[in-house]
Amino acid sequence: MSSEIVHGRPAPDASGHRRPRVGVLGAGQLARMDQQAAIPLAVDLRVLANDPSEAAVLAGVEAVIGSTDDLDVLRAFADDVDVLTFEFEGIDPEHLRALEEEGHVLVPSPAAKLVAQDKLHQRQTLGEAGFPVPPWIRATHADEIAAFADEHGWPLVLKAPRGGYDGRGVQVVDDVDEAAGMLAGLPGGVLVEPKLPIEREVAALVARTGDGSSVVYPVVETVQRDAMLRELIAPAEIPAALADEAADLARRIVEHIDATGLIAVELFVTAEGLSVNELALRPHNSGHYSIEGAVTSQFEQHVRAVLGWPLGSPALTAPAAVTVNVVGPEDGSDPAVRLPRALAVEGAHVHLYGKSARPGRKLGHVTALGPDVATARDTAWRAVKILEGDAA
Amino acid sequence: MSSEIVHGRPAPDASGHRRPRVGVLGAGQLARMDQQAAIPLAVDLRVLANDPSEAAVLAGVEAVIGSTDDLDVLRAFADDVDVLTFEFEGIDPEHLRALEEEGHVLVPSPAAKLVAQDKLHQRQTLGEAGFPVPPWIRATHADEIAAFADEHGWPLVLKAPRGGYDGRGVQVVDDVDEAAGMLAGLPGGVLVEPKLPIEREVAALVARTGDGSSVVYPVVETVQRDAMLRELIAPAEIPAALADEAADLARRIVEHIDATGLIAVELFVTAEGLSVNELALRPHNSGHYSIEGAVTSQFEQHVRAVLGWPLGSPALTAPAAVTVNVVGPEDGSDPAVRLPRALAVEGAHVHLYGKSARPGRKLGHVTALGPDVATARDTAWRAVKILEGDAA
Repeated sequence: MSSEIVHGRPAPDASGHRRPRVGVLGAGQLARMDQQAAIPLAVDLRVLANDPSEAAVLAGVEAVIGSTDDLDVLRAFADDVDVLTFEFEGIDPEHLRALEEEGHVLVPSPAAKLVAQDKLHQRQTLGEAGFPVPPWIRATHADEIAAFADEHGWPLVLKAPRGGYDGRGVQVVDDVDEAAGMLAGLPGGVLVEPKLPIEREVAALVARTGDGSSVVYPVVETVQRDAMLRELIAPAEIPAALADEAADLARRIVEHIDATGLIAVELFVTAEGLSVNELALRPHNSGHYSIEGAVTSQFEQHVRAVLGWPLGSPALTAPAAVTVNVVGPEDGSDPAVRLPRALAVEGAHVHLYGKSARPGRKLGHVTALGPDVATARDTAWRAVKILEGDAA
Repeated sequence: MSSEIVHGRPAPDASGHRRPRVGVLGAGQLARMDQQAAIPLAVDLRVLANDPSEAAVLAGVEAVIGSTDDLDVLRAFADDVDVLTFEFEGIDPEHLRALEEEGHVLVPSPAAKLVAQDKLHQRQTLGEAGFPVPPWIRATHADEIAAFADEHGWPLVLKAPRGGYDGRGVQVVDDVDEAAGMLAGLPGGVLVEPKLPIEREVAALVARTGDGSSVVYPVVETVQRDAMLRELIAPAEIPAALADEAADLARRIVEHIDATGLIAVELFVTAEGLSVNELALRPHNSGHYSIEGAVTSQFEQHVRAVLGWPLGSPALTAPAAVTVNVVGPEDGSDPAVRLPRALAVEGAHVHLYGKSARPGRKLGHVTALGPDVATARDTAWRAVKILEGDAA
């Protein structure tokens, strides 16, 4: 008997072709789904993970365990891949610029990535270029916030310029005292905006390569709950003219900031029209439906765009697709234990991320396609309720 | 700076849920595609690979490198998984029976698997049960073959009972002298059949769980070239009554031999009707279209069936799907170097297996969906011709 356990891949093969190596900074579920797309394209993914229990590592992606905050770790990681890309925003922009100056290829570039990383920079960059952004100020003192409230009224929305996601770093405040609390924690200043009368939120995914080629996915509607995406509907049930306007806006923003890779442009719809909410320069929760619901998934598109390969069709594969996130239930139980029952829901495509269950944590998603939104939504929710232990 | 490279997964997570562990005997492209299905279901796959350059190992599946012919290796591998399954036929049936007797769970069972492993056993088992098989004998002497030829005429088809695939172990012989050559190498006897006037070849995939639940996929047509599957068309362009008969035949065969997991039943269509060609008790090349072309891919279905989970819908997602295999070209070049150009073919879903290129070796496949077979076939072939370096 002779056997050994191995993980990962051997040296380049004898035929001389070296598979492209894409390094992903971050190792969560987005990198995990990148891997699902990388396998059929024979692209070698490697992730930089802060912890070996992260979702992409669990899926067998070759991983370097190290801090994404440590420039030396980033450098060593970059040395061993052809191109660097991202699955989250929270990497020090100075580190990214250093990597770029040292000759590493980053998709998107650090300059473009900064527009998603820093909300103040985003508002300034897009506002100056004439794109619709909400009224905003950068405030470092409570009296600036009070003056802004005099003009726009309370409540106001305060956002930490950097580091927030899924509602973290965002606070709705009703008076100056509440605002002062958040200000105290952010000596560099805070982004202040009115609480817009939002009718709905939509998102447009764009993929773009270094030669300027781009594709825009059909605009989707996102429904938030507890400041986290809960449900996404493709295509958005909005007038065609508004959908066209949103897609065009997203495409122009991406071109203006010269972003490459996969980009999500999140937009508010108000009575006055469209207004930019956030950008994500990476695959995004609003594109999860595309695994089954589009000819080319956002993850395959990301891999293609990062490598400068031709982009795929973003067309829908069904009249409607609905994705519902699977969130860790309050009792701390793991939805995975209820997976077999959920698989009995015909047409429900269940995706679990393999992460430890915790209440309120995104642990997976379910996508269903259908002849209309109502049918697809019903299918997706039936499976999600089973997974979350909430089935009737 | 502190970092380390890791591959694979850590210990079970803190939430207490242990992900199911499926052990696959074999590590080629079928196990690689099993992994694509296992990731979203949060199932831990482990493969037994004879060599670390095998396709599934390249995709990051946790692998034990060891001989699939060595019972001690098989035992150690089985000890560490919940259930064993297969991606090829060529494992000693005695070893499988030993594993079963020692309490390991195998899907399919060794007794069912043997029907696919041994062509003589298959003809005998199915023939005795009244299923349509070609006329056949087991021959150990040339005079038995001569007598069979007196009845059925030359040429005859001689098949090694075990170990053949993709045309290996199959020989068409025109006279007794030719037959004697093959006989000499197979002292245990050879399967002898007439060369049937085959109009076309079709296949029906069945998935079945231990409780007897089963689903049958739409019958597909397979087109062989150089004794290897070259093109598959879903659904088969045959009369509905014949397709129904084929699907029903496949389902009854699977029930008769009490097969579980994913099963492919390959059938000949002749002027006299359907006749069983081969069985494969594992995912099969004739089901590759199902990744994009069916609601539930054969690989997801395989994982579900092996774990006894509810089976998914086998319905097609488009009116037609065509898969064309990518074969290593004569010049030894690797199709992967031409991948970017192939991705420019809109609607072509390219799957490369990451294996070293060799002339005549299956290196990948391309699937295209369409409103009709002609459109899908055109799309798939355009990409394959580019990949094989044969584009106009």
